[in-house]
Formats: sequence, C-alpha cells, structure tokens
Amino acid sequence: MKQTPTFNPARALKLDEIGQWDIETDVAIVGFGGAGSCAAIEAAKAGASVHVFEAFSAAGGSTALSGGEVYLGGSGGTAVQKKLGFADSTANLFNYLMMQHAPQGDEAKIRAYAEGAAKHFDWLVAQGVPFKESFLDERVVEPMTDDCLIYSGNEKAWPEVDHCKPVPRGHAVQLEGMGAGAVLMQHLEQAALAAGAHAYYDCRALCLIVDDEGEVVGLVVRQDGREMAVRARAGVVLCAGGFVMNEDMVRRYAPKLLRGNYPIGNPGDTGAGIQMGLSVGGVAVNMHEGFFTLPFYPPSTLTYGIIVNDKGQRFINEDAYHGRVGTDIIAQNSERFYFIVDVDAYGSYEELNFINADVVATGDSVEELERELGLPEQTLVETLTSYNRFAEKGEDPLFHKQPEWLRPLTSPLVALDVTPGRGAYYSYFTLGGLDTLPGGEVLRTDGSIVPGLYAAGRTAAGVPRRGRGYNSGISVGDATFSGRQAGIAATERARRDR
Amino acid sequence: MKQTPTFNPARALKLDEIGQWDIETDVAIVGFGGAGSCAAIEAAKAGASVHVFEAFSAAGGSTALSGGEVYLGGSGGTAVQKKLGFADSTANLFNYLMMQHAPQGDEAKIRAYAEGAAKHFDWLVAQGVPFKESFLDERVVEPMTDDCLIYSGNEKAWPEVDHCKPVPRGHAVQLEGMGAGAVLMQHLEQAALAAGAHAYYDCRALCLIVDDEGEVVGLVVRQDGREMAVRARAGVVLCAGGFVMNEDMVRRYAPKLLRGNYPIGNPGDTGAGIQMGLSVGGVAVNMHEGFFTLPFYPPSTLTYGIIVNDKGQRFINEDAYHGRVGTDIIAQNSERFYFIVDVDAYGSYEELNFINADVVATGDSVEELERELGLPEQTLVETLTSYNRFAEKGEDPLFHKQPEWLRPLTSPLVALDVTPGRGAYYSYFTLGGLDTLPGGEVLRTDGSIVPGLYAAGRTAAGVPRRGRGYNSGISVGDATFSGRQAGIAATERARRDR
Repeated sequence: MKQTPTFNPARALKLDEIGQWDIETDVAIVGFGGAGSCAAIEAAKAGASVHVFEAFSAAGGSTALSGGEVYLGGSGGTAVQKKLGFADSTANLFNYLMMQHAPQGDEAKIRAYAEGAAKHFDWLVAQGVPFKESFLDERVVEPMTDDCLIYSGNEKAWPEVDHCKPVPRGHAVQLEGMGAGAVLMQHLEQAALAAGAHAYYDCRALCLIVDDEGEVVGLVVRQDGREMAVRARAGVVLCAGGFVMNEDMVRRYAPKLLRGNYPIGNPGDTGAGIQMGLSVGGVAVNMHEGFFTLPFYPPSTLTYGIIVNDKGQRFINEDAYHGRVGTDIIAQNSERFYFIVDVDAYGSYEELNFINADVVATGDSVEELERELGLPEQTLVETLTSYNRFAEKGEDPLFHKQPEWLRPLTSPLVALDVTPGRGAYYSYFTLGGLDTLPGGEVLRTDGSIVPGLYAAGRTAAGVPRRGRGYNSGISVGDATFSGRQAGIAATERARRDR
Repeated sequence: MKQTPTFNPARALKLDEIGQWDIETDVAIVGFGGAGSCAAIEAAKAGASVHVFEAFSAAGGSTALSGGEVYLGGSGGTAVQKKLGFADSTANLFNYLMMQHAPQGDEAKIRAYAEGAAKHFDWLVAQGVPFKESFLDERVVEPMTDDCLIYSGNEKAWPEVDHCKPVPRGHAVQLEGMGAGAVLMQHLEQAALAAGAHAYYDCRALCLIVDDEGEVVGLVVRQDGREMAVRARAGVVLCAGGFVMNEDMVRRYAPKLLRGNYPIGNPGDTGAGIQMGLSVGGVAVNMHEGFFTLPFYPPSTLTYGIIVNDKGQRFINEDAYHGRVGTDIIAQNSERFYFIVDVDAYGSYEELNFINADVVATGDSVEELERELGLPEQTLVETLTSYNRFAEKGEDPLFHKQPEWLRPLTSPLVALDVTPGRGAYYSYFTLGGLDTLPGGEVLRTDGSIVPGLYAAGRTAAGVPRRGRGYNSGISVGDATFSGRQAGIAATERARRDR
C-alpha cells in the first residue's frame, strides 16, 4: 500500500491510493460480534471466501456482554413456544413490533423479521446454541435460572395487550445465572470458523476503499502495527456495533442519553462502522434514539408500587417494560421521580437492589410522605387515594396497569428516589445507524445503494428504533438476523457478478 | 459541460466530469431567502463577486412567508429595546438560549449569536429594514399592528422566568397586519442587488462539483432547461431552506412532525441543500427535531384556561410559548387533549379562532364536563378543584403558571378538543440540518471541514434546536445572522487563497 499519513474511519481511501492488495476475499466483515459471526456463517456456507476483522482479542462484541436473550416468534411459534403451548402468528408479531416502533419503524425490516424469526430460532439451534424447553413465568430482566422463555417486553402491558395477543418471546440461551450472551457467542464464533471463515483478532478496520464509481472495493485494516489493504470482491459488511462508547458522538446525535449513568456495550462501540458508512455516501437515521432504562425488577413486587413525578402525578402503567419506564421518565418535564411503595411492594428490594435508588422518605400516612418529599399539597394524597379506590376494584382507568399488579398501597409508605442523575442506575445504548435495506445494503440519501457495502447489527438502524418500544432480546435478535441477511446478500452479489 | 445522465442533489459531480465553466464567481449562493440574501450582501460588500441562484421566480424563501419577526437582544439591548427601557445583557440572552436548546444547543453558535444580535439589528436597519420604536404588551403570535417589540417566547414563563431576566426580544418588521416577512425580504433582496450580487431566478441548483481532494469548487444549475456549470472560487453557500416540504425526508428523519397538519415553509424546502452537503461528506445533525405548534393565542384569554390530557391531568404551564405547548402535547402518552375554559377565558375565541379546535363538551359543573368528555371519574374534578384552590391565591405549585394568568375557572365550562389529528391546527417545520461552524463551514463526521462549502439558515442546524425551546423570530434571526457569517467566511477564504 502507498504511504498515507493518517487513517480515519470518516475518510475513505480511493482505489488509486492503494498500491497492492495484502488480502483478497469475497466478503470482508468488520466486527466479530452477533452480527458479524452470523454474516460470516451464512457467507461461508454459501461458498464465499470470508475474512472477519475483529478489533479485540476475541470474538464477542456487545452480544457477548448481553443476557443472551433473543426476541423471536411468529410463524405459529418457535419450536420452544409451540412446545410450551404459546401460539404466535406472524401477523401478531408484526403488529406488535410495528406498534413498538411507530412512527419510525422500518416496515420492510419488521416484516422480514416477523416472517423469519421462528426459522431464525431453528437456525441458531443448528449452530449449536443451547435453549432449554422451559418457560419462566416471572417479571425479570433476564432469567437467573437456565430457563428459556420469558415475557421480555410490553406484551402483557397496556396498550399492547389490547391490540396484540400476549406471547412470551424472549428466548434466553441456556445458562444457569446471568450473562448467557457469552455462551451464544462461543457457539456463533465456532460455527463461523467451522464454516471456513478466516478470523483476524486484534485487527482494527481503519477505513473503506472506494473506486471512482463510488463502489466499495475493500478496506484497510491494521494488525501488529502493520496496515493491510483488503480487497473484498463481493462486499464489506460493517458489523462494528453502535456508538454508545463515543461520548462526543452521543453528545452530537443523542444527547438525551447522557442523562443515564451506564452506557451498555463493549469498548468497540465507537461509531467507527457508522462513520465508515457515512464516508462513502451512506446515510444514518434514527440517530437521536436509544434504549434508556431503569431495570427495576426483580424484585417484581416494585411493580405494585406507583411512580410519580414532582407534581405527585403518575404518568405510566408501572407494569410496562423497564425500558419504557426509563424512557418515559426522561420524557417528563419534572425534576424528581419517586417510586412509592408499601411494605409488601418494597418486598426484597434491599437484597436484590439492582437500581441503587435510595429510600428518601417514609411515612405513616400519605400526608406525611407527601410533606417529606416536598410535593405540592394534596397532590400525592389525591393520586394515591384515586389509585387505591380503583385498585380495590382491579381497575386503573388512567394508565391501565393490569389487574395482576393492582392492589391498594397501605401505610406505612416508602419513597425511592429514581431521579436520573441522583444515583439510580440508568443504562443506555444507541438505536441509530446506517439506513439499510432488509438485506443490509447501505442506502444513500436519495435511496440508491452504495455498491459493495452492507451493515448489520447496531451499525445499522434496524428493527429496534424506539426506547419506548424496546424489548429485551430484540437487539441481539436483530443483530444475528440482520447479520445473516447481509452475509447472504453479499454472497449473492458475488455470484451475480461472476 | 459533458453529458451527464441525470442530476441529483445527493450526488456530487467530479471536477473531471465538467467540460467548461459557464459562470465563474467568487461566492455562489444557493437560495435567495433570508440566509442567502444576507450572505450575498456581506460577500458583495466585502468585494467578492457573488452569484445567487434562486429556484423560484422571486427572492423570498420561507423568510418572506414568515411574520417578519427577528429574535434579538443582548449587548445591553438593541436600539429599540434600549429606547423602550428594556436592558438586556449578552449573558442574559446567552443563558436564555442555552436553556431553550439544552441538551443539543450549539454553545459556540449561541455565543456568537448572543454577542452579535444587537449589532445585527443595526445591520438590518442599515439595509433599510423598517422597525417602529414601539412595544406591544400583548400575548400574540405576531403583532397585527405595526408595532415592533413583543415577548415572543418563554421569557415570562416558568422555568425561564426564574433563571433569566424577562426581556421582550421579538422585533417585528414594521407593517400594519400580519406577514411582515415579505417586507423584510424586499429590503434584503434590494440590498443584495444594490451591493452587486447577480441574481438568477427560476434557476435551480442541481448538484455540487468536487475536486479530487474533496474540495467543493462549484455547482451545476439549470435555467430555461439548460444546465450551467458554475465555478465558485471562494465557496458555495447553501441557503436552500429545510426539508419540511419533503414528506419522505420528514418520515425518514422526523416522523413525529407528521402528527401536525400544516407544514410551514415555501415549496422549495425540499431538503436539497442538506442533501448536497451530505453528498460531499457533510454531516447532518438534529434531524429528528422540529418546531411544532398549536398557536392558540389570540385570544390570549385561553391562557386562563387549563390544558388536560385524557387522564384529566394538566402537564404544562399554559402561559408557556405556543410552540412549547404544541411540542409537549405530542410528547405526552395520551390520546386526547382538551383546553378547559370558562366563559371569561373562552372570550373572543369564536371570532379570532386561529386553531380550528371544536367545542366538544360544555358543562354546568365540572362533574358534567368530566362525564361528557369521558374522562376517568374524579380526575378532572380533582385537577380543577386543586387548580382553583391555588389560583385563588395566585399560585400554581405544579406547573408554575404565573400569577398574571391565574384565576379560578368557574362553571359553566367549555372543552375545546385540541387533539392532533382531530382538526386543530398544528403547524411545523424542521430544525435539523448540516452541522456547521459559526462561520457556516460545513463539518464532516470527524469534525474536519469540507473545503469550499458553507451552509446557513435552515439548511444548517443553527441556533434553534428544540421545539420546546423555540421562540418566534429565532429562525429568521438565525437565518439572517448565519447567512451573514457564511458570506463573510467565504469571502475571507477567497482573500486568503489569493
């Protein structure tokens, strides 16, 4: 390769700046996480030569750090759903995901996902990923047992429950305890290598290479201090994660997320993949959005409590998914937020405390609690009186919390301060990225395709688009599913061009 | 020029695709609206040759369709503010604008604007723009008299009123009646032509031209069916408006705005300027945001009423600026919104009705109104009882509506349905665009500059960044101010390179 002063993911090199190719392949994949491994498996199995470039010393990406849940259903049900008696039609899954991500959901992607999700489960099993045939009927962020199926979103919460048949769709990879994402990635990495993919570790992608017509023809990578020009005959697939670890980028595009105190992801989520896509005319969309959450259960008993703002008002059904609760909290114009619980609802909070929220007031009466919290006179009293009156009847006419979680709150009462920025644990990651077709083809602003470039996982704007509509397992589901589509599409392109 | 099949703002031509130059100039300006005219004046006065390309038959842009208000202050006060006794420090204006646009405000731009705004007023006057030395002490969207100064934002509303000294900063161009933007543009067009700018009307900019180093060296325009290659020695200044009239782009980037029914702008706000910037590596930010409003006053008396959601809850101080009210309405999780007023507050609504909201219920008691609206039992009753109890004392402990607008609401009561999508007038425009330095230099994703390219007005992401923080006059203020900076910066670049 000719001398080039500095490399920058935001600046593509031109083909004529490249002296010779150091590596030649059909499909070059940037990032060996959930999306990259699945792209590699599909491309290699379809007969393409595949090289995967991973910046760190091992495969994994943010998928390996996740709970290893995959959000799947439709087609009558996945194998596990069917076995356990949960029928789930494709229309039911499609309608649910459209409802979650309106108005910015990508209908074509959601349709492809709804149609392919159940088969995607079989495909993961075929790669050796273990799932137990069991259902855990608890309100948890992820199973701490080795169980598989959980309700991992808003399926049983209003308004979804009125429009879509509730079905559990979170499929957790089998592992006793948390963190099954590492198990998932072990199997996907092995499957990719077994299929013939060549993996380069500690090998960072520096920038793309384009020809005069704007076609992506390769990329530059660096390993052991040496730059190598990689020719990708079929295409480059960007699976380099999102940008949550790049604070400047988060500030530029999604500043609201900085109200959280815990970015979720691996250190490689620097946005370099998105920047490479932008550097060749790709367009990024949904960049302001993110998953933003207060993962307040377990203990699920907190769900019996109510969440109020600094006006003493409720503003959400507390049985909604924790990500919706977190997202709605930062959408409020309020300087304080409290969980108000009684002794029953407080339950085992102290032992299980995931969210690090402090008890800031207790009261033998609502009036006392209201005063201690400095809430305007009669506000909490009226909110709680009304809540209790209806809860007695199993009703919540304001926010439609479901009867399962409705019971009057009785003194003594406790208030937990869940105000962002005051200690409570708010975690977040980004949901914006390159605009792509369902096959991963990266789009320009005019809707045309950047030839030779694909993106998947959080480098792309995929199925999950809204914090309010997020469900546990949808990002890993989308990453692995979209990775496969990109691997297939790139290989087909190679075949077409031969 | 060599044959080129089709032109597309999203695809720049390469210099070697251009056979010969049809026009040569120092500064080429795309769009003859508020930003373009001011860029032309400054560049021409500084000695540059200037060509302005306007897609329509006359200058004007969206500025000409506006109320002709310019949001200005600081430096002790503009000439009009000082004359009328309103002292306004630069720090006061800076703090206010930072508060309006946090967390996505651009501090450097806001600082430049706060420091330069009062002088910008003098500059507008020097271009012949007429302002009367008068203050209209009414809560209006724009003066229907020929008066100048109004409170045109959230200056007197909570929380701003607690942090920044309230000063009226909306400076309306002198015209009896509405629509003074046309007067403003007449003067700016004349000033630009008088300064020596060459204007091409009915002449559409098709795409940019870049050289091999990525420098913008010109653009292609079409007039009378003929394409012309324009060499811009100093730079191209994109002043082509926002993208509110491009429904596909709004759907892609800012879908929430489509809950409105009235896009504000001229038909040229197609996003072509933003696309041109993207085509040469510029980056767009804040693309999801917009001004979104329910301009409910006059009659200002509606401000005595309360706005409730379908839970019977208030959620905003009704004396906030109308744009904040509109923006907060669509941020709520609620399917219905009502203005609840009594006979006094209803006032002259029927004669002045700007917002086309229907009376959907009346009641001789709160209970009756609550029932008619189908609100959950006791919700409106409790909201109104509490509101009245505090209003009696001139207090609003929940939302801090100021004493001036607080008085108990007494039966009979009337409810206006202001739900978006049910007839009420919601207007909107976009607040996302190219990321630029205060001088208008267009930035790439890595923070470097695209040489030879500038953007101003709504083609750029400027001072106004949030619907919640918008003030009447800030977009025209920003457009004219940022246009000037870009004209100056491009001319200085020409001088440097000579």
